[in-house]
Order: sequence, then C-alpha cells, then structure tokens
Amino acid sequence: MFHSKIIITLRKSILDPQGKAVEHGTHSLGYNAVKNVRIGKFVELNVETESKEEAERITKEVSEKLLANPIMEDCSFTVEKASR
Amino acid sequence: MFHSKIIITLRKSILDPQGKAVEHGTHSLGYNAVKNVRIGKFVELNVETESKEEAERITKEVSEKLLANPIMEDCSFTVEKASR
Repeated sequence: MFHSKIIITLRKSILDPQGKAVEHGTHSLGYNAVKNVRIGKFVELNVETESKEEAERITKEVSEKLLANPIMEDCSFTVEKASR
Repeated sequence: MFHSKIIITLRKSILDPQGKAVEHGTHSLGYNAVKNVRIGKFVELNVETESKEEAERITKEVSEKLLANPIMEDCSFTVEKASR
C-alpha cells in the first residue's frame, strides 16, 4: 500500500481573493512581513497497489481527472510506501 | 525573504465527509484502489525577514493563530529561502 500527498495550487496568473483576505488578516494581527499569501488544497490518500509505479499512475490520473481543474490549477504529488 | 508552505490537516479522530465524497468519486471513475481520502488546506506565503528563525516564528504564529483550528486540525510547515 502506498500513501500519496497531493498539493493543488492556483496558477500564478489567477487572482486569489481568499489569499488576499488571509494576508489582510495577518496584517491586522501585526504580522506585516507576510506577503503574497496563496491558498491551495491538500489531499492525502492511500492507494492499495503492489507497485509504486501503479500507485503513481493512479494518483496522477485521480489528480488530473477529479481533483484539479487544469485550466486554473497546478498539481504536484508525492507517493511513498505506507508505514502500515 | 523566505517562502513558507503550510499544510493543515484534520486530526485523525475527526470525520472528513468531503474526503469521503472524493473517495466515492474515485471509485465511480473506476479507481477502486483509492482509500482513506482526507482533504486539507495548503497555504503558501512569503515572509520578508532577514533571518530564517524569525520567518519560522512568524509562520508558526500565523498558522496557529489564524490558519488552523487547533481543536480539530494539525498543521506543519516548511520555510525556505525564497528564490528571488
């Protein structure tokens, strides 16, 4: 069994109003050094396969077909052997 | 300047209905090997400080005070020198 961690981020060219709101929040708390906040999604899942290659293929396909919107989002992932 | 990446996940003991919905979605697409989907948040931001220690302190405080709900969520982060 393998454990995949997927990070989905908005493309740089897409405005991120949620990130802007969080940035204003940090400044309200006095953290003026915080800039360029961008919010993304994090998904973790297990893949019950024998080979890492198969787990990577499934993770990539699920990310691209179901989780990310390829027009607006980029995604990256890591796949590691699950500890149990 | 430093670049921080923050991952916020629901604690293991908290049910994740959004993750369950995504898991059903993967099975509908035929990916039956996918299990235990959990959805979290990903936040990236820049911190304009001179020292990495200061950037780590600010990232930790912002994560704990503003981004994560410590009752229900865990958070982890990395801080690296920004490339530009």
